[in-house]
Order: sequence, then C-alpha cells, then structure tokens
Amino acid sequence: MSKSKIAAVIGGGVIGGGWAARFLLNGWDVQVYDPASDAERKIAEVLANARASLPQLHNNALPAEGELRFCDTIEEAVSGATWIQESVPERLAIKHATFATIQAAVDDTAIIGSSTSGYKPSELQIDASKPAQILVAHPFNPVYLLPLVEVVPSPQNDEDTIERAKSILSGVGMKPLRVRKEIDAHIADRFLEAVWREALWLVKDGVATTEEIDDAIRYGFGLRWGQMGLFETYRVAGGEAGMAHFIAQFGPCLQWPWTKLMDVPELTDELVQTIADQSDEQSGMHSIRELERIRDDNLVGMMQALKQRDWGAGALLNAHDKTLHSENN
Amino acid sequence: MSKSKIAAVIGGGVIGGGWAARFLLNGWDVQVYDPASDAERKIAEVLANARASLPQLHNNALPAEGELRFCDTIEEAVSGATWIQESVPERLAIKHATFATIQAAVDDTAIIGSSTSGYKPSELQIDASKPAQILVAHPFNPVYLLPLVEVVPSPQNDEDTIERAKSILSGVGMKPLRVRKEIDAHIADRFLEAVWREALWLVKDGVATTEEIDDAIRYGFGLRWGQMGLFETYRVAGGEAGMAHFIAQFGPCLQWPWTKLMDVPELTDELVQTIADQSDEQSGMHSIRELERIRDDNLVGMMQALKQRDWGAGALLNAHDKTLHSENN
Repeated sequence: MSKSKIAAVIGGGVIGGGWAARFLLNGWDVQVYDPASDAERKIAEVLANARASLPQLHNNALPAEGELRFCDTIEEAVSGATWIQESVPERLAIKHATFATIQAAVDDTAIIGSSTSGYKPSELQIDASKPAQILVAHPFNPVYLLPLVEVVPSPQNDEDTIERAKSILSGVGMKPLRVRKEIDAHIADRFLEAVWREALWLVKDGVATTEEIDDAIRYGFGLRWGQMGLFETYRVAGGEAGMAHFIAQFGPCLQWPWTKLMDVPELTDELVQTIADQSDEQSGMHSIRELERIRDDNLVGMMQALKQRDWGAGALLNAHDKTLHSENN
Repeated sequence: MSKSKIAAVIGGGVIGGGWAARFLLNGWDVQVYDPASDAERKIAEVLANARASLPQLHNNALPAEGELRFCDTIEEAVSGATWIQESVPERLAIKHATFATIQAAVDDTAIIGSSTSGYKPSELQIDASKPAQILVAHPFNPVYLLPLVEVVPSPQNDEDTIERAKSILSGVGMKPLRVRKEIDAHIADRFLEAVWREALWLVKDGVATTEEIDDAIRYGFGLRWGQMGLFETYRVAGGEAGMAHFIAQFGPCLQWPWTKLMDVPELTDELVQTIADQSDEQSGMHSIRELERIRDDNLVGMMQALKQRDWGAGALLNAHDKTLHSENN
C-alpha cells in the first residue's frame, strides 16, 4: 500500500461535495474547508448518494474509503494535500483570495484545480504567487459518477504539472480532457450555454414548456449523445457518403436567418417565474433527493450498458476496473 | 386481427428507410417510392439493422412484420395508405410538387407527415389542395430506435387529424411531441443547430478536435441528457433550493460577452476539410455499417437500462410492451 493520498476540497457545495465523494471512494483522504454551517450535512448526503451508486459501476472492489475531515481553516485543509480542488463561488475576487491563502500554505508540488465553469486559467492565475500551480479542472454534476473533467492549462502551466494532474484525475476514475486553448467556459459549457439560451427563448415564446423541451432531448438526441457525440453521430447519419455528405446537407442551414438563435433573451422575473412554475409542474412530484437517486440510478444503468459494450464511458470504466484489479492483487 | 394497415414512404434515404423499418416491424405494410437506383439495397440495410435491434427492446413479441413493396410511382405507393411519410430532399419546391402528386391520389382521411427538419407546416401547406392533411412529423435517426417524433401542426390542421397522427405514431412505439407553435426547425433541431454552430467555431479556432468535442459530450452531459433533459437536470443541480437557485446562479452568464456564440462561422472548404480529416482520424477505423451497429447496440443497452427503471424512454417502452401484450392475447 502506498502512503496515504490527501486531497483538499475548498468549498463544499454540490460540486465540492461531489469531488469529496469521488476522492474518498477512490481511497483518498479528504480534508474539507467550507464556512457554511450546513456543509457537513450536505456533504454527508452527497456521499450517501455516491456510496449507493459508484461501486455498482465496478466489477472490482474500490480501494478502502479514505478518511473525511472537516477543517476550520483553508490552511488546515490543504495541509499535506497533493491535490487541492477549489469550488468556491464564481466570483474572480473570491477565487483570487482563496488561491492566495492556499498558496501560502501548500507545497510547491501540490496542484490546485479549479472547478470554475467560466473563467480561463490565465484569469485565475492573475497575481498568484505561483501561477503555474493553478489550472482548471472542471467537472460535471454528479462529480462522483460522470467521468468528464476538463483540464485547461494556460501557457504558464508546465507539461509536468499538466500530466500529473491528468494522472491523478484518471486515478480517481475520471476522463481528463485537456483543452488545447483556454477560452471562456472551456468546451462543454459553451454547448450548454448555447442550448440554455435557446431553451429560454422557446419557453418565453410559448413554443414549448420545460417538460416538452426535456422530452425533446431525452427521447431523441440525448440518447445518441450519451454514447457517441456530435460529430460521430453525424458521420453515421451521413450514411455511406459519411461526413462530407452530411456537412453538405446540413451545413448551409447555418446561413438561415434564425435570428432568435443569435440573441440573448432577457431573463425577466416573469420568465424566471414561468420556468420555475413549469419545472414544479414537471418534476415537483419528486423531491430533489429522489430526483438525485433516480438520476444516479439511470446513469449507473446506462454506463453499465456501455461497459458491457466496452464503449465510451463504459470503456473507461473497464480500463479503471483493470487498474483496480491489479491494485487489489 | 384488424385489417392491414398501409403506410407509404416517399423518399427512401436514411430517414425514409428508418420510417419504413419502424412501420414494418410494427406490423404495417409499407409501400416505398424512391427514384434512386440503390433505394432497395439501402432500405434493406436499414431494415437489417432495425431487425437486429428493435425487438431486443421489447419483452413481448412485436406484431408479424408487414410486407415491404417498392413502387414505381408515388400514386402506386400511396394507394390504400392511411399514413404517408414524406422524406424527400429539403427543398420547398420538391416538397410542394410531391404533396401535389400525393394529394391527387390519396383519400381525404389519410395523413401526410413530413420529415422536414427545417420547414414550418404552414410553408409545406402553401398551394396544397388539402392543406389540413399535411403536418410535420419530424423523427430522429435511427428512426426505428429513437422514440421522439415532433408533431407540428399549423392553424390549418384540425384537432382530429392531429390526434389521429399522434395515435398512429404512438402505435408504432414512438413518442409524439406536439409542438405548440410552428417555428423554423421545431424544437430539437434548434438545439442541435446551436450546438453545431458552436462546435464549428471550436474546430475552426483549434480549441478542440472533433473527437475531443465528442468526448466532452459523451463522458459528461450527454449521459445526463439521455435520461433527464435540460431543465430537470438543472433542477437537481440547483440542490435543495431547486430551480430558482439554479437560474439565479447560472442565468446571468447569458449576459457575458461570448460573442463567438452569436456568430455563424463561415463554412469554408478548409473548415470542411479539417472536420472531415479529424472525423476520419477519430472514427475511420470503423465502417459506417459498423458504427451504425455500435450505435444501435449502445442505444438498445441504454434504453434497456431505462426500461428496468421505468423512466423516460424506458417508461415509454414499458407502456408499449403492455399494448403489445394485450394485442397478442
């Protein structure tokens, strides 16, 4: 057994809690700093969800669960940590202050990953004492189940740090996707942003309710995207002529004057209320806890199906199983 | 046994072939018109894929497969048909000419569904002899597996026609989603369009390759969207505070100056070539036929998992199973 691995989780909301669960269930000790009074309860609930779902994805036993410790200060939380995950609110001043406190206390070899969904690493690194130590490691909810983590370096990060970051994230069962150039919102959230904007228009204009929009996704292209992405799906859709045929057929649509696609709808109180009401109508019969369990159970089932086929997220899980097997023996 | 049900499939490409398979495997006779010399071969291949996948989704036997007949004229293909599915190229003049020929030959009670992904039903109905007979029935590839079909009426369609259309489509195992107001590209393709545009930018700017973009989707939000859609996922992500909290947190991002999100990239020859090359690099080790089978097998596995959980597409399949059971007995 190698010596214990320690991760620090700074900020323990839905995302920070998911990170804590991901590391704990993969055998890391986790030290949490979150000033919120209900942080312990919230993380315990996320951890319960993770314990009920993640082990089902593996044929081999996960390592013995690490130890979870709540700390009163950032300094205490980062003590001895080789990975520090920052998941504080999305305000640059708060992030900078957090990094300053972290960097005053950690080893130079520790890596600080930020869960930011919007900021570029070079923005996070501004005024940092050791900018090369900070990069973006942007996960997806639920962090303990979904494999993707976008690893976004700036030119200030050296290759060794980036490779070590990818290796640590792979080690806890994730799929680190290195983003070649830093841009606002990285890759996945640019898509989510584009879809979100369009969805707001559809609700605002009374074209569809939140439930109808969800159905338009989950009975159709959502299923496709769970296993192939956009381009591979379209490659197949192009038929025997493949990608070139598809682009020739679909590409010109982009020139159509769908002006609504280009604007940002104003997020008025009325629109927010409409969405909240429609969402209550759609999902209000389930508590958030119930929805979390339904979601997790569905994700487990879909990923188990992909495991059987050794494809996509399933292939990643199979590879991780092999690692677990060799570590267990 | 009720008297035989006849569907006409006008245009037999990937989409028309998928429709033919969907109807045939659900016990309808199908009469196909497609002037292309290789239409029979292509439809046979789609049908082979459908036969290998669709029955796996049901615990109860599907009806005896209907009879497939290729016809030399549209008039012959629509003879006796109660459902006519138009899947000809996306050019309005071709669609109008096709509808004119169909309408001169069919009963008034037959319904003409168009597979158009872009046109509004009122555009399709222009100059039609019986506009009320035509509506949009927009499916998703692979049509024989994915349940979603967007049913888009114009104010010229009466409720009886719309309800009959939904009933027929439900009868072949689909999820008809009635779109409340006609708009260009209906609902789902507006999302696909927004994502496609953004993906072109990411490739053009060298931020990500086609494979990296696909990975950003299928290891993350694609899995989420296969079982819940956008709004229900975000409701859960909002945590205990739910939807209002989520919107408060994420909504303002829409105001950020992500100008690229708003523009349409020029689809230059160079960009098309880059995409085609990257797609070859990503998926070229599989033939299109292989990719189709991988996709179908994955979709079957994911939907089987959702069936076990009686959720989303799985709940729809369970309901269809009950119908099959009562029809078998």
